[in-house]
Formats: sequence, structure tokens, C-alpha cells
Amino acid sequence: MGLIVQKYGGTSVRDIDRIRHVAERVAGVKKAGHDVIVVVSAMAGETNKLVGWANELTELPDEREFDLLLSSGGRITSALLAIALQTIGYPAQSFTGRQAGIITDFAHGRARIARITGERIRAALEKGKIAVVAGFQGIDEKSDVSTLGRGGSDTSAVALAAALGADLCEIHTDVDGVYTTDPNIVPEARKLDRISYDEMLELASLGAKVLQTRSVELAKKFDVPVMVRSSFNENAGTLVSKEEKEMEDVVVSGIAFNKNEAKVSVIGIPDRPGVAMRIFRTLADANILVDMIVQNIGRDGMADLTFTVSKEDLPKAGKIMGELQKELGMQEIHVDADIVKVAIVGVGMRSHTGVAAKMFECLADAGVNIEMISTSEIKVSCIINAKYFELAIRELHKAFGLEKWEIHHEKKYPSRP
Amino acid sequence: MGLIVQKYGGTSVRDIDRIRHVAERVAGVKKAGHDVIVVVSAMAGETNKLVGWANELTELPDEREFDLLLSSGGRITSALLAIALQTIGYPAQSFTGRQAGIITDFAHGRARIARITGERIRAALEKGKIAVVAGFQGIDEKSDVSTLGRGGSDTSAVALAAALGADLCEIHTDVDGVYTTDPNIVPEARKLDRISYDEMLELASLGAKVLQTRSVELAKKFDVPVMVRSSFNENAGTLVSKEEKEMEDVVVSGIAFNKNEAKVSVIGIPDRPGVAMRIFRTLADANILVDMIVQNIGRDGMADLTFTVSKEDLPKAGKIMGELQKELGMQEIHVDADIVKVAIVGVGMRSHTGVAAKMFECLADAGVNIEMISTSEIKVSCIINAKYFELAIRELHKAFGLEKWEIHHEKKYPSRP
Repeated sequence: MGLIVQKYGGTSVRDIDRIRHVAERVAGVKKAGHDVIVVVSAMAGETNKLVGWANELTELPDEREFDLLLSSGGRITSALLAIALQTIGYPAQSFTGRQAGIITDFAHGRARIARITGERIRAALEKGKIAVVAGFQGIDEKSDVSTLGRGGSDTSAVALAAALGADLCEIHTDVDGVYTTDPNIVPEARKLDRISYDEMLELASLGAKVLQTRSVELAKKFDVPVMVRSSFNENAGTLVSKEEKEMEDVVVSGIAFNKNEAKVSVIGIPDRPGVAMRIFRTLADANILVDMIVQNIGRDGMADLTFTVSKEDLPKAGKIMGELQKELGMQEIHVDADIVKVAIVGVGMRSHTGVAAKMFECLADAGVNIEMISTSEIKVSCIINAKYFELAIRELHKAFGLEKWEIHHEKKYPSRP
Repeated sequence: MGLIVQKYGGTSVRDIDRIRHVAERVAGVKKAGHDVIVVVSAMAGETNKLVGWANELTELPDEREFDLLLSSGGRITSALLAIALQTIGYPAQSFTGRQAGIITDFAHGRARIARITGERIRAALEKGKIAVVAGFQGIDEKSDVSTLGRGGSDTSAVALAAALGADLCEIHTDVDGVYTTDPNIVPEARKLDRISYDEMLELASLGAKVLQTRSVELAKKFDVPVMVRSSFNENAGTLVSKEEKEMEDVVVSGIAFNKNEAKVSVIGIPDRPGVAMRIFRTLADANILVDMIVQNIGRDGMADLTFTVSKEDLPKAGKIMGELQKELGMQEIHVDADIVKVAIVGVGMRSHTGVAAKMFECLADAGVNIEMISTSEIKVSCIINAKYFELAIRELHKAFGLEKWEIHHEKKYPSRP
């Protein structure tokens, strides 16, 4: 007996057959004796249709109106799923973001949840009802509808789980869980049965698009265990939870990557205070997000500086650097879009030595030159030439033994309390 | 300078092109110096899509959930129209039923408006904004979404006009206004430029499906002038307003009809107290709505009774009468679905004699036998054999000179204050 929050994404509720299927799954949990809150996204395609209509009118619709428009999708699904549950004999009640008491700030289109009152949901659960909540939306203090950004239903689910003290938050999606790396690149990639919040954040921001980053931050903050699993089968999924001692036994949990970065190198910058500040302030003012930054002392009191930006921002960044070249006395500027970032992620790095060295050795053995290195507590990232992308991922996956990753926590962390 | 409420129905906002067109019309009124509240329905087809989805799940969806589902349509249109207005440079703000402060009772699917607070709309108008309200919906005292029944956007518009003291409520639809009769039957039918609330109620309940009946009752109660006009052209439309003295000059305003009635005749009922009560109580308990009732004293202390019900209810009504036949000692029961009701409607009848006689004479001259007659203050209804339907309508239209109806109030009642 516990309280379970389940979230079903757009593909999991894409038509009435799928909604009926979801109703059966939810009913199964209720039947097992749990209280259930279900959070649903818009049916696949619905949000794009609404966005398309708005864009027929204008490229930049008013954010308040756009939020009202997009909030319809989740409301429709929540009503349909409540009806589907009632039809198979399970008392259910839908809740809009407002009825669920999800209060947000005023940042339309990317609102942050300020608090969740949730009285009506509690009352419904006490009456034995299944609560079906329209995801992705809330209401601001002015009583206007707000939305939480694409993928915001994950955040709705985690926030509700935190506010109502749920035992588990299940994210039902169209993948089986979190993998050691992209199975399209490495067929031997294994599904992880457990991963820590921090590892998940490092993997997610690098492109493993399973959970909205903000929902993971929220889960970490309130210590909500999150199970990512598929709505299309009964497999166990991946449990994202707080770090525990035995997690450190696993040095590397996964191999992440980002193919959307480009590199800007400056050779020969006068090594005096304020130069780096001037460069990155100018880029920030132009709304360019800089990811990795590496600086070395070069010859003759000159420094070399390399940084990465997204591929879309490269032309703008190149132009700005050209404008700054004379003023700052930079000798050469090179740009390179033909790169990828590969990274190993794992909380075990903190207590194991030689992890970075093993990564560099592995890449060297494969004949892959490393153009940039950046490290954090639980991650080592390398920029390499794009042509080595798949090779590097596969070799690293093998070198860190990820294909043989053992599922030894299964018993200790069952999917439901 | 005044406050105008405009309502646009589903066909008037069926796609983005039409919504853009509506934005231009609304902008024109604002530009002329008026404050404007626009009430919109769901885009044509959207409501049917949502109903279809619910019916894939069950024939009888829960009313609370069904209301939440159906309320999405108007919300989507209101957001899109607000965006369309902003795009052409007019400040606009959408309002859900809740944000508009439309508080209803708890009768899901057919809720009645209890009160309208409207503070946020007033505030928006004061800032020079156009208020765009999602029609057909409100919120009950438990904070659940309610809907007002099909065509409920008319009621939303009239109620808002009453609550906010609008000078005029314009219903923009896909017909040019209210006609003397159905132009499909009588090509010479003329559009009325004025009609009283009572006449409109008699015409509407008989099948002239232009305005939701409840919206006319509400307009009458709060004396809101309602202009029915087409959103597809600039024609003046028909003004529905309180009765004024010169309206009585027009004896008959229109010819209404109902093809969906059927007749039950009982010949030979013991003429004693309680028999009619027993019959109509039994029919009412079976949820059968009885329209016309006529009773005559027949021969030998026996009475004859005839009444009409809807065609769908005829089998059930026939069965009930059969069951009562022996108990009440009724001699013969006849049912007839092959009838129509035709009616002349006009406030002038009150002060003109011989109107009913003229109707009977006209039908007799055309060789049409009258099977039942029923009269009210401003209406005379006759049941005739269905085969004479078009003939009767055409002859009555001619006999009361409706094709030559003069538009002599045009100057006195302009379309906007």
C-alpha cells in the first residue's frame, strides 16, 4: 500500500486504444492496493496541431494566449482517461492544473512551479478515486493558465509526487529506461536498473532525452524516486534515485554525447586580465550559450583559448570574434563545426583514481585524437573529430565494461513499494 | 461609443482564415470607437471530434468529465482569436469561462448561469483591450468546469451583455437573420429587420434554429437587444428586442413549423375527473414531453382526447396508452406520425381580430384539412397531414402578406449604438 504517481507521455496516449490500454495499466496498480495519481500529456500530434494554428497567425504568438492554447491538450487527455477508467469500473476524477492546485510563477511557456496545494486531489484519493491530472500546466497567482515548457508533464508528475509524499513517481514513456549509451550506436548498450540524480542530470543534458532536466533537479531536491519505464511493455525500467554507497562501485554508468557543438579556437591572446571576460561577456550579451572553455598559457606570454558553442550559434560567434580580434590583439581565430563531444559519467569517479586516464588511453588506442578535455566531479568530456564519433562511443562502452553491467539491485529496489 | 458583445459560432471560426476574418470584423468595431467583448464557439468540427473520442470509450460518459472535455474547444478558439487580433495591432486578451467570472449551477452539460462577476473583463476593457471569451462554458461553485448545452455560446454572449450592461449583443452566424419562414420552402421569404423576444421564442421553439431558446429568454429578462446577422457578409441582420407599440401593426411576423411531431388520438374516454391526469402523469414519468393537448366532449358522456409527442417518443407513448386502455376504459386509440405542425406567430394578434379565422380560411381554400388547433396569445398552431406541409406554408406566407413585409424600422434601430 502506497501512493504512486504515474505519468504517461504523448505517444502513450496517442489514440483512444492507447488511452484504454493506459486505463488498464492504471487500474492494475489501483487493484494492487495503491492510491494512484496519473499525470497525462496531450495526445501525440495535438500540441503540434495547436502550435501550427498559432503559427499560421504569427511567428511569435503572445505567451499568455499561447499557454492557454497549449493547455487544452492535457485537459482533453485527462478527461478521456478519467472516462476510460470509469468505463472499466474504477472511480476516477480529472484535474486541470488549477484544480490540482499547481501554482506557478509568471514565466509563460517555461513557468516554474511555486507550490502545490493539492487539497482536491487528496480529497479524491481519500474517497478511493484515481486522480487524473492534466500535465504540463498550472496557474499563476493572477489566475492565468501557465505551461511548464515542452516535456513539462514530467515536472508536473515529480512535483505532485513531492507535494503529496508519493512513494514512487513512474514516468511511462516510449523507451524502456535509461541506457548506458544510445543503443542505435552500440547494440550492446544495456538498460541501467539504477542511476543517481546527478548522473541522470549529466546524461540528460548531453542528449539522453528521457526525462526533462528540470524534473530530475526537482526529484533530487525533494528526494523523489523516479522510475522511467515503457508504457508499451511490462519491463522494469530504470530507477533514478539518490546516490547510495554501493553506486560508487560502478565507476562509469554511461557514455553521453552531444553532436550539436562547434569549436572556436583563438591562438595567441595577450595574457592580461580582462581579455577572457571581454570575450565571454560579448558572447553572453548576444545570447550565445558557451559550453566548454579551455585556456592554456602558450608561447611568449600569449595564451591559447578554445571554447564550444552550439552549431546554430557558430556563425554569430565567429562574427563576434572577428570584430573583437583587432581590439584584443588576437593572432589567429579558427572555427570548427566538425566535432562531437563524448563524455563518461559516473558517481564512482569520485572514489576511483585513473578513470580519466583510462578514457584517454582507450581513445588513443583507437587512434582518436582528443582536441579538448574538460572534467567535473562525475564526468569527463572530450571533444573529438566528428568522424570518430561512433568508434569512440563503442570503444569507451567496451573499455568501461558497460555491456556487462550487472543488474544486482533488482531485489532491493522493486518497482513499487 | 458603446459596449458591444459579439458572438461568433463554429462555422464562423472554422479555420485560421475565418478566424483572421473575424479578427478584422472585430477590429472594425473597436476602431469605430466601441468597447468590444467577443464570445467564440469551438471551431466547426472540433466538438464533434471530442464527442467522437468520448463515445469510442462509452455511450454515456460522466457529465463532469464530458464538460471538461468539451470546454476545450472554445478555449482554443479564444486564444487563437486573441492572437489574431494582437497580430493586426489590437490589444486583446482571452478569458476562459472561469476568468470571465461566469458562475453556473451544478447541472453538467446543461448548466444555467447563476451570476457573472466579470471584474477581469471590466479591467481589460478599461485598459482598451478587446476581451475574447470562450463561449459555452462556466465554472460551478465547486470550481469544476460546466457547459451550457449545445448552442450555449449564444447564452454566454447574452448573459455577458446583460451583466456588463452592453448596448447591443450581436450573434454572428451563418444565416443573414430571422426569416418570415424557411427560405428553402418559400423562396419569397423575407428577412425580418425586427422581431420581439416573444415572437422569437415562438419561432425558435418551432424550428427556426437561429438562436438558442434560453439565450432569448435571458435577453428578454434583462432587456438585451440582440442582433442576429451573418459573419460572411455585411448585411444588417434581424434585431430581436422588447415589444414596442408599432410592432403590433404587423399582425403575423412569421410562419413556423415542426416536422418532428406525432399525434395520439383517444376516442371515447369516460368523462370523469382524474382520467387526463392519469394519462399525462404516466407519460411524464416515462420522460415523454407532450406538446399540444386538445380535448372535446364527445357523444354519450364520453370525451375525445388528442395530443402530440415527438416522433421518437411515439412508440413508447403508444405502448403506455395501450397499457392504460383497459384500466381507464378507453374505446379506441389511434397514432399518426404522418403529420406536421404549422403555426403563425405575431404580437399583433393580440389587438387584431380574425387572425385565426383567416388562417383556417386560407388552409381550407388550399384544400388542407386541419386535424388539431391550439392557440396562445401570439400564436395559432394547426396540425395537418404531412403531405400538405410545403403547400400550407406557402399559402399562409402569401395570405399574410409576408413576402411584401416592409423594412420600415431600419432608420430607427441602427445595428450599433
